[in-house]
Amino acid sequence: MRKNYKITIEYDGTDFVGWQRQANGRSVQGEIEQALQRITSSYIPVTGAGRTDAGVHARGQVANFFLDTNPDESDLLRSINGLVGRDIVIHDIETVPDSFSARYSATAREYSYFISPTPAAIGRQYSWQIGYRLDLPLMNDAASMLIGARDFRSFCRTASATDDTQCTVSRATWEREGDGRIVFHIRANRFLHGMVRAIVGTIIDIGRGHMGIEALPEILSSLDRRQAGQAAPPHGLFLERVIY
Amino acid sequence: MRKNYKITIEYDGTDFVGWQRQANGRSVQGEIEQALQRITSSYIPVTGAGRTDAGVHARGQVANFFLDTNPDESDLLRSINGLVGRDIVIHDIETVPDSFSARYSATAREYSYFISPTPAAIGRQYSWQIGYRLDLPLMNDAASMLIGARDFRSFCRTASATDDTQCTVSRATWEREGDGRIVFHIRANRFLHGMVRAIVGTIIDIGRGHMGIEALPEILSSLDRRQAGQAAPPHGLFLERVIY
Repeated sequence: MRKNYKITIEYDGTDFVGWQRQANGRSVQGEIEQALQRITSSYIPVTGAGRTDAGVHARGQVANFFLDTNPDESDLLRSINGLVGRDIVIHDIETVPDSFSARYSATAREYSYFISPTPAAIGRQYSWQIGYRLDLPLMNDAASMLIGARDFRSFCRTASATDDTQCTVSRATWEREGDGRIVFHIRANRFLHGMVRAIVGTIIDIGRGHMGIEALPEILSSLDRRQAGQAAPPHGLFLERVIY
Repeated sequence: MRKNYKITIEYDGTDFVGWQRQANGRSVQGEIEQALQRITSSYIPVTGAGRTDAGVHARGQVANFFLDTNPDESDLLRSINGLVGRDIVIHDIETVPDSFSARYSATAREYSYFISPTPAAIGRQYSWQIGYRLDLPLMNDAASMLIGARDFRSFCRTASATDDTQCTVSRATWEREGDGRIVFHIRANRFLHGMVRAIVGTIIDIGRGHMGIEALPEILSSLDRRQAGQAAPPHGLFLERVIY
């Protein structure tokens, strides 16, 4: 009997070309599909909730796939974990109704972006190092301007004229961690390609005084990616959670 | 005028053959010496406080070297950091009396060893993953047996018959961190080759019930490395601090 399996995945994006399978290079999707191919001897397409770019990490990526072979969930989890690289760990597996799609059933996604104020060797692949002073209250004022349903076309890397670029942002806050790192938490029903990194890059420009906060509503209404700041580097970004 | 420079170094040991310069492979010492050679156009030997093995990390390794060129300390720090790989960061530099030796002037060293109870992709290069249950109070009882001045020959990988293998351990404790990791903190006036990893491997054998705690004094008095447990893997180990 055909069953739909939902898995929750942690990965270190450092050595991947991204989530999505590509002709060249190691992808998270490709690695999991290869493991399933070795287990089932057939090609099993895996659908992910979000396509993370090269270098972007995930603590709670979600994916689903269908199997006819009906294996025990925990055996299957152990088999996949045994076959993928050590930079991928499947933490949870469950069978779900056939109608469930990791991508289309998701109602919200949460990302975090980590910034370190001091240079570090240990853990350097997990945060953006910024030595200059940042105005955190001002950055929170800027972040609050993103809340609500808006057109985020100015923060999308690849939107064509006909693409839907409406997103509803329900959380956008900057916080200081106990260890001195600064973290941006953002939650939305959906994210456009490169959206979090473009938002972080723009708010950092505001926080360091290179751009006035009044520029942000203008950038949003321009619907022009060139008006926003440079994308923040991928290695500070984590897909934390997908909500269904 | 010749000056003696003391530097404090953080490094991610993952991609190094260890602290010590070797004929083949990237070493931390070699990388810093190469940077100094490019800055001064001459070979400047660098002395480290402790020789960490391949894969072992450091947050507070200390080294010293002599220069005739008398550069400004903070310029020199920036130059070295600009020339070494991103997995090395010099955090501090100061001029010290000529008599100072990072190795021989040190009065104590502190190491930490991190253990994760759950498999992780992110940060997997910074702790040993152990899925089985560990008896932490028992492991602390075992650790307390190491305190004091003793012969640690049973925990040394390479001691010859004539080597001095006496060490004075002033701290040895296991603690649980807020994030669920378990950390072993050990401080001694000196450490033998492979000593922390052999101690950790042995106490883990006790903590998981594979060895009785009464075996520990017997191992110590045997003066035989084969009596102790297997060395814990290098990637959980951090040289935290050197005290002068």
